[in-house]
Amino acid sequence: MEAFNNYIKQFPHYTPKVYDMVLPYLQEKVVKAGDYLLQEGKICKHISFIEKGLFRLYYLTDGKEVTECFCKENSITTSYSSLITATASEINIQAIEDSKLIVLPYHGLQKLYKKELFWQQVGRLAAESEFLIMESHNRFIRDLSATERYRLILENEADLLQRVPLNYLATYLQITPETLSRIRKKIVRT
Amino acid sequence: MEAFNNYIKQFPHYTPKVYDMVLPYLQEKVVKAGDYLLQEGKICKHISFIEKGLFRLYYLTDGKEVTECFCKENSITTSYSSLITATASEINIQAIEDSKLIVLPYHGLQKLYKKELFWQQVGRLAAESEFLIMESHNRFIRDLSATERYRLILENEADLLQRVPLNYLATYLQITPETLSRIRKKIVRT
Repeated sequence: MEAFNNYIKQFPHYTPKVYDMVLPYLQEKVVKAGDYLLQEGKICKHISFIEKGLFRLYYLTDGKEVTECFCKENSITTSYSSLITATASEINIQAIEDSKLIVLPYHGLQKLYKKELFWQQVGRLAAESEFLIMESHNRFIRDLSATERYRLILENEADLLQRVPLNYLATYLQITPETLSRIRKKIVRT
Repeated sequence: MEAFNNYIKQFPHYTPKVYDMVLPYLQEKVVKAGDYLLQEGKICKHISFIEKGLFRLYYLTDGKEVTECFCKENSITTSYSSLITATASEINIQAIEDSKLIVLPYHGLQKLYKKELFWQQVGRLAAESEFLIMESHNRFIRDLSATERYRLILENEADLLQRVPLNYLATYLQITPETLSRIRKKIVRT
């Protein structure tokens, strides 16, 4: 649980009291590589802090998988719109590595919202962050060529290139595995 | 100011006290049709409640305008990511009709965040709403044909079709004005 405590310490106005408030709601969970934390069609009812491991969030469009993001240790994963609207998720959350989570049920967070300003603030900052991530990903897909997308990951998140199977990476870059393979060869040569 | 008071009354835990808190920060503003509330490159420092009128939010990509959304009376308009990150806006906000706004500076809202749970909650719900709107618009563009997009507006926001010039509507549907014209003729015939 300590990693989660360290995570929430980042937020302004943190006090040990707010950690004591959330503690009774937290549960540990293990998800094996390849298994699902959430499948589309289900309502997402949890926010999960990744203590260890790696997940991908993907949806299907015209029968094809599109990976929306990868979530790794020391970050949060959830199907955000399903969570806040209590509707069926269009997103699947699948573990890429054996992973360990600290899970907070949404009903618990909603109770905390009513009790303490700090948790409302966490909710606001989390929502703002989800918005910025989506906007940035929209631009990533809209404004960059496939090679530029790959280079950006190489520069900023090189560890993902070691950890994510290439077929998943291709669905994130929204290119075919063959195009990804050509880009990788070209970059190695230059 | 009464329309803004009615707007915030929708949020849970509203009391007249929270309106009294925000009142000193509010300013009225008039924007004429065609004029800009915000231009790209500037940092957005305000949240504006539209008392009367209509705006479009658009960005340029490859020299072409793409309209991200239309905002009309009794709703909020802002360049959200510019606002919360204090970075240059990529979005232009232009009045389509003569409009009247009630403007809340972001520094005022930030002061309110520190004073009162209600305003943190407004910030959270606003951020959640911005997220859902963007996600829904992504799906609108990704999953629907041009005709389906037009029909959806016809069914849900028919007033916009009367109020928005067709060239702006085409940039919202992400089609050419000629394609829009063909769709409209086809729908009138069926």
